[in-house]
Amino acid sequence: MELLKERIRKDGLVKAGQVLKVDSFLNHQMDVELLGEIGKEFLRLFQKDQVNKILTIEASGIGIACIAAQYFQVPVVFAKKSKSKNIDGEVFTSRVESFTHGRVYDIIVSKKFLGAQDRVLIIDDFLAKGSALEGLCKLVKDSGATLVGAGIVIEKGFQEGGSLIRGQGVRVESLAIVDHMDEETGEIFFREG
Amino acid sequence: MELLKERIRKDGLVKAGQVLKVDSFLNHQMDVELLGEIGKEFLRLFQKDQVNKILTIEASGIGIACIAAQYFQVPVVFAKKSKSKNIDGEVFTSRVESFTHGRVYDIIVSKKFLGAQDRVLIIDDFLAKGSALEGLCKLVKDSGATLVGAGIVIEKGFQEGGSLIRGQGVRVESLAIVDHMDEETGEIFFREG
Repeated sequence: MELLKERIRKDGLVKAGQVLKVDSFLNHQMDVELLGEIGKEFLRLFQKDQVNKILTIEASGIGIACIAAQYFQVPVVFAKKSKSKNIDGEVFTSRVESFTHGRVYDIIVSKKFLGAQDRVLIIDDFLAKGSALEGLCKLVKDSGATLVGAGIVIEKGFQEGGSLIRGQGVRVESLAIVDHMDEETGEIFFREG
Repeated sequence: MELLKERIRKDGLVKAGQVLKVDSFLNHQMDVELLGEIGKEFLRLFQKDQVNKILTIEASGIGIACIAAQYFQVPVVFAKKSKSKNIDGEVFTSRVESFTHGRVYDIIVSKKFLGAQDRVLIIDDFLAKGSALEGLCKLVKDSGATLVGAGIVIEKGFQEGGSLIRGQGVRVESLAIVDHMDEETGEIFFREG
């Protein structure tokens, strides 16, 4: 998605440790006009897939998912990060490792909001090592819902998440795939095609 | 806002301890069509106030704020919940007590995204004891921005948050104010006018 790549080139900041900061427009401050264009692009990619629910994870996925959901005209469910595993059986749960924050946590979704009747599109802002996305896929699978695919805003193509999830047979559509970042010059190189 | 009150009466669940669960349409599963109507109502209330930024707090405020921001055509900034106080001076920070979760945490906003040029509308899903809203107001004040007011989806009118924040001179517009909930019958009574 060219508009997105241009914005990342203009406002994205390359930091030490292969960190890409896009907090001025995507995941701290959010440009809702850009999110609208992102939502339209996800609809274009998945419009034939009879999506009836969008699943995301708190926090930064929520805004992107809600705006995209307006184009699909479907509800959003967001998985919550939980410190203690719910033991009353009312939730689907999955374990996720955050490499950014150096910790492991459980994510949960109420069983009321995911089930066999659902055709789920997962939406998230980043795909890097793939732990969050793998956890979300597991929630969908456990619920008996159909996983239509995953729509990702920015994929770090030099990390293993994309291969991992696609290798499990999940359709992953990333609107911008970063192949390489130069920490010295700040240049960002995208995968073409 | 009558549409919202009807929805709360229909799908809201009154739980022990004066808990109102609206997780089927507002803060776990989200009805984005309803959020669109909520956004339009916030615009109607604040359209003369030259809002140029919407501030909210993760997680459940984000979807509401992003959809409202489309009507205002302004960016959203969401305050992050942080376990450790950032000490490098790059963020505004405030302490918030969560009565639901029984803990105290810091909220932070990067200094890059709030400043004297901003006219800020705060948006959040709930107002109860008012600690989160008070924390957000403090962030705005510390940044030198102008606080236009706060748009709240559901205010628990029988708790002290509304009086507390209005008593500080902040304009608070709540789309539904719950005056009383009957835990026996599940009935919800709204303030009129």
